[in-house]
Amino acid sequence: MKKGFFDDRYLLGSDTAVALYNDYAKALPIFDYHCHLSPKDIATDRVYDNIGQLWLECDHYKWRMMRACGVAERLITGDASWHDKFIAFASIMPRIIGSPVYAWAHLELKVYFDIVRPMNADSAEEIWQAANAKMADGSFSARKLIVGSHVEALCTTDDPADSLEYHKAIAEDETFTVKVLPSFRPDMACTGVAKENFKEYVEKIETVTGIDCDDFDDFLKAMDNRLDFFVANGCVVSDISLGALSDRTADYEEAKVIYKKGLRGKEVTAEEEMLYSDYMLIYFAKEYARRGMAMQLHFSAIRNNNTGRFAQLGADCGNDSVGPAISVAALGRFLDAVEQDGGLPKTIIYTLNEAQYYELATMLGNFWGKEIPGRLQLGAAWWFCDHVEGIKNQLKMASATGALGVFNGMLTDSRSFTSYPRHDFFRRILCSYIAEFVDNGEYDDSPATLQKLIADICIDNARTYFKGE
Amino acid sequence: MKKGFFDDRYLLGSDTAVALYNDYAKALPIFDYHCHLSPKDIATDRVYDNIGQLWLECDHYKWRMMRACGVAERLITGDASWHDKFIAFASIMPRIIGSPVYAWAHLELKVYFDIVRPMNADSAEEIWQAANAKMADGSFSARKLIVGSHVEALCTTDDPADSLEYHKAIAEDETFTVKVLPSFRPDMACTGVAKENFKEYVEKIETVTGIDCDDFDDFLKAMDNRLDFFVANGCVVSDISLGALSDRTADYEEAKVIYKKGLRGKEVTAEEEMLYSDYMLIYFAKEYARRGMAMQLHFSAIRNNNTGRFAQLGADCGNDSVGPAISVAALGRFLDAVEQDGGLPKTIIYTLNEAQYYELATMLGNFWGKEIPGRLQLGAAWWFCDHVEGIKNQLKMASATGALGVFNGMLTDSRSFTSYPRHDFFRRILCSYIAEFVDNGEYDDSPATLQKLIADICIDNARTYFKGE
Amino acid sequence: MKKGFFDDRYLLGSDTAVALYNDYAKALPIFDYHCHLSPKDIATDRVYDNIGQLWLECDHYKWRMMRACGVAERLITGDASWHDKFIAFASIMPRIIGSPVYAWAHLELKVYFDIVRPMNADSAEEIWQAANAKMADGSFSARKLIVGSHVEALCTTDDPADSLEYHKAIAEDETFTVKVLPSFRPDMACTGVAKENFKEYVEKIETVTGIDCDDFDDFLKAMDNRLDFFVANGCVVSDISLGALSDRTADYEEAKVIYKKGLRGKEVTAEEEMLYSDYMLIYFAKEYARRGMAMQLHFSAIRNNNTGRFAQLGADCGNDSVGPAISVAALGRFLDAVEQDGGLPKTIIYTLNEAQYYELATMLGNFWGKEIPGRLQLGAAWWFCDHVEGIKNQLKMASATGALGVFNGMLTDSRSFTSYPRHDFFRRILCSYIAEFVDNGEYDDSPATLQKLIADICIDNARTYFKGE
Repeated sequence: MKKGFFDDRYLLGSDTAVALYNDYAKALPIFDYHCHLSPKDIATDRVYDNIGQLWLECDHYKWRMMRACGVAERLITGDASWHDKFIAFASIMPRIIGSPVYAWAHLELKVYFDIVRPMNADSAEEIWQAANAKMADGSFSARKLIVGSHVEALCTTDDPADSLEYHKAIAEDETFTVKVLPSFRPDMACTGVAKENFKEYVEKIETVTGIDCDDFDDFLKAMDNRLDFFVANGCVVSDISLGALSDRTADYEEAKVIYKKGLRGKEVTAEEEMLYSDYMLIYFAKEYARRGMAMQLHFSAIRNNNTGRFAQLGADCGNDSVGPAISVAALGRFLDAVEQDGGLPKTIIYTLNEAQYYELATMLGNFWGKEIPGRLQLGAAWWFCDHVEGIKNQLKMASATGALGVFNGMLTDSRSFTSYPRHDFFRRILCSYIAEFVDNGEYDDSPATLQKLIADICIDNARTYFKGE
Repeated sequence: MKKGFFDDRYLLGSDTAVALYNDYAKALPIFDYHCHLSPKDIATDRVYDNIGQLWLECDHYKWRMMRACGVAERLITGDASWHDKFIAFASIMPRIIGSPVYAWAHLELKVYFDIVRPMNADSAEEIWQAANAKMADGSFSARKLIVGSHVEALCTTDDPADSLEYHKAIAEDETFTVKVLPSFRPDMACTGVAKENFKEYVEKIETVTGIDCDDFDDFLKAMDNRLDFFVANGCVVSDISLGALSDRTADYEEAKVIYKKGLRGKEVTAEEEMLYSDYMLIYFAKEYARRGMAMQLHFSAIRNNNTGRFAQLGADCGNDSVGPAISVAALGRFLDAVEQDGGLPKTIIYTLNEAQYYELATMLGNFWGKEIPGRLQLGAAWWFCDHVEGIKNQLKMASATGALGVFNGMLTDSRSFTSYPRHDFFRRILCSYIAEFVDNGEYDDSPATLQKLIADICIDNARTYFKGE
Repeated sequence: MKKGFFDDRYLLGSDTAVALYNDYAKALPIFDYHCHLSPKDIATDRVYDNIGQLWLECDHYKWRMMRACGVAERLITGDASWHDKFIAFASIMPRIIGSPVYAWAHLELKVYFDIVRPMNADSAEEIWQAANAKMADGSFSARKLIVGSHVEALCTTDDPADSLEYHKAIAEDETFTVKVLPSFRPDMACTGVAKENFKEYVEKIETVTGIDCDDFDDFLKAMDNRLDFFVANGCVVSDISLGALSDRTADYEEAKVIYKKGLRGKEVTAEEEMLYSDYMLIYFAKEYARRGMAMQLHFSAIRNNNTGRFAQLGADCGNDSVGPAISVAALGRFLDAVEQDGGLPKTIIYTLNEAQYYELATMLGNFWGKEIPGRLQLGAAWWFCDHVEGIKNQLKMASATGALGVFNGMLTDSRSFTSYPRHDFFRRILCSYIAEFVDNGEYDDSPATLQKLIADICIDNARTYFKGE
């Protein structure tokens, strides 16, 4: 039976899928354990008053699609009005069939604006009017959007040097009960030793900790200090993006020497950079484990590939793409080194390179155990991969190579306050996926089993996994 | 409902798919922007009089399948009669279920011979008789087959040294109005500097241009000259096959020195060969851009892998296969170098290695813009990949990572005058793919939107993209 | 129509699939050309008396899933009772939806125990009781399970130094007519030259052959001797697992020198190890060809990745995973070297890295011919890949790039006497796959054609391929 445009059966492939979704998934709250929301915007409860700015201010997914369709840059990142940008964006819709941008935009239109209508050049103006009318009462504020989306907790992404002032302010505000937790993301501390601004970064750490970091040991102490500070402010998870991993395990003395070189602005070779990074990754992994924190590793993103556009617009403007597979032997060595030397923390590995799912998922499986369900796991389909097929692929891989029932489920990875329908998107795909097994007699059809399986993946696993110590 | 053997619903997965195909796709003419037809055969209107020769004279796809099934080489490339070769080919059909060779052969049998019947050892003789009876009136000539297939334009593959005499003859013949355009394929000029016959090749260029190419600058001038000549004869697109790309950008002085070495027959190292190739690729890319030409890059084919058979039969005899992924970082560097230095031409990248679709498609996305829809794009599923699943995969990837609506659609890449049903094959898969979104309420179901989307991908995008300046 | 739990339509996607399976596939006997059963257990007709031991004694697939779900190691490989281990295993079932372990366990429960019921914490105890009751009459013996599973032949995995005493005993026992054939697996002889125990291994070969192997020529003679001995005992196929292949072909003199080094315990470099391995692989390949034996090569497994667990439990305990793609150029070089120098044997290549299917399958195609159907072929979906999707992927790849009708079909690759339902599992997927082509009018629907196609893939191709000289 043909479905209506974005109707209630959207992405639900069968009656069983509809039932699973409605009965077990739909009403569950959201634990968004990885996002890039601005804590300041939440603390100050930023208000949006037009759909153009709401959608197009900083969404490089949308910008790329506009460029793909030949829209002028003036209407993308340039000085055109929000109105004109929105019209340009809505007008490309007919050309991006099958894109997650098509799906998300229409889902958001339905969920937040009650508008169920294909966007295109003809409908754009009316949608602009109707959407903005809906926003006129101030209901599109950061906090109202979060609360209205049934979010119970979210983890932002923060540098160790961050003061967490907004996290504190939010936590202290009794009128807003959603947990807004910092995530510890030590990119500069791990992979920045060869960068020009490494010294500057270390100075920042010295300022916030009051610890003189001239010596490597003191830098590590300062990092411990920041970890404790983050944990005291609710941090339960770390994150880092890695281009590659070292082929051999670095030792302390090497790392100490390289740190000094970096701090003094002396040349650090590519090999030294990698060894230093390896030392820090292992150091942090052990510290995360000690604190019950989970560790997220993100692989195979290559950034800022268009020099001209980067010079003009900076990072996060649609110039990033999927990198090659990493060395799975190097990953194995790293995981093994941590496991032997104190023990791995809970670990989630994401990749943009789907072709490496098998390698990564099965390597993680070598370190399962210690009585922690899903101790290591393949992360959700991420960035370029979180479209319908990509999410299905990740579910297939997770269930073919491991235990889907221990998977932590979806995250938004987003800078937008209206990105929560991505959880709904995922839940619909998940329920369809599970329904197929049920309908094909390949899985237990008892309600209790199905309810638990779905609730676990939609939220309960994340609640347990990210509860810290 | 079970479909009949190759009936009208072939590859159409739903009523919506049938309607989209019949209403919007079926009757559209063909713009075959990439093929390997012989311009001479078109100019002289070569006539075929038996299906054995028509199908088996130079089709290495078919040869491989025959070898896979244990057919003797005498019946493949040997001295057996066309009759015996055809019988042998028809007899393997039951064993190659799911092969594109099975699909294409039966489609061609239906479209060109009105025969709808499974080929096998029992039916082979009757099919041989019936097919040849159909051919007896001379209707299987190059031109009649092209015109009867509703081709409006086709691009052959030609070396810069080519005289284009047949293209000219065809263009001047008012009785044949299909556009037969040359494509500029400078493999030797770009990647031949270390080859034994490089000097010989340069001499050919000297002959056709009248320019003494002893100096590198003059060789470049000669190439400009040939580009102008090609463009004057209707060329709108270039092509090249590349095994790998340089990790760093070559400069002019380096290229000049390497050119001299190549010309003098001195040893050119593998690194120099790569640098020279990089210089030429960037040089040509800029020249293409200046002329409004599109650039096609083909990756991950490895050729002539069976030494014994190559010695016996030469190239293009079924001894090629899918190579490893290329370095996407090197591709990014190359694209960025061209973009910074004058600007990229319209660019299509094909690969045989599906596992790298994500990397390539998203890298191309970094260079979208300049108000050209589909400026850079992932090419159609090619060679080993253009079976049903392969075409679906390419459509999925194109829509998941970009804008499917700007895709240039199908090409035959073929040496055969009866290969046009591959466009029909593609259109059926495309309509089924689009129909799924429509039926699932994931895309606008308005006739105008659907008609434009389908017409764009089937022919209109190619008409715009390949119109030259 | 919703199917019942593991009912007769299990994995059969349509009425046509049901008919194909019931009419042509179901009753066929099994030729299990690759397994890891213990010849001793067959010779002595080992009897199992409880389902815990039967299933959990050495099944690292199951162990990994238990670890993934947080089960304590004591209940996996530790000293807990078989009862407690079984209960723990049954209890994780709800969490491993979509895992092949879920599918296989429930299939085995149905086929061998007549129990059709979802395993979980609630049903575990009753299933334990019912299953063990079924086993109480001694019917779960190695031989009874093999015969009851309609196995006509099976190939074990054996070192060249093996005495084959159990194979002989089985062959001589007229009460047991299933063919139990040795496979020649010379891992140490090919890839062990740099290993500490290489000398020890050579001494073993000296003992079993009576040939002094101080000189390389004599070692090769001893290997010939063992090959003849294996063939005399019914061996029709060899096997080896390879991490990588040499980029260049080794010559005899090099190999001779490296052999001496290995034997003397001198340092053998990684490059020498690879060259030696290459020489031996080519040597054996030619010897296999001379004897009509088939050659199996297994790629992209990386083993024993968790140092701590390996130290505790040893190999084959769930610490292996999928490795990176091998160099397909090196594979091409190897195959070409053998083909030029005497000719390739029948060759099957398996990989754990699905992302490389295209490269491997099409490289094999370059060496098809010599009038042997399926002379080289992509092996069945293996280990981490032999779940439903993985098997479908392999079928798709095999048919897209070659002739599915010449495929040798399934194998168990198992250490378990109740793993034969994996053939049934495969046959159901195969029949569904073929049925889709039939129902879609993409393939001949004549019963004779379909019967032959299915019988060929289920058993007849293997019977022909593995019949030796």
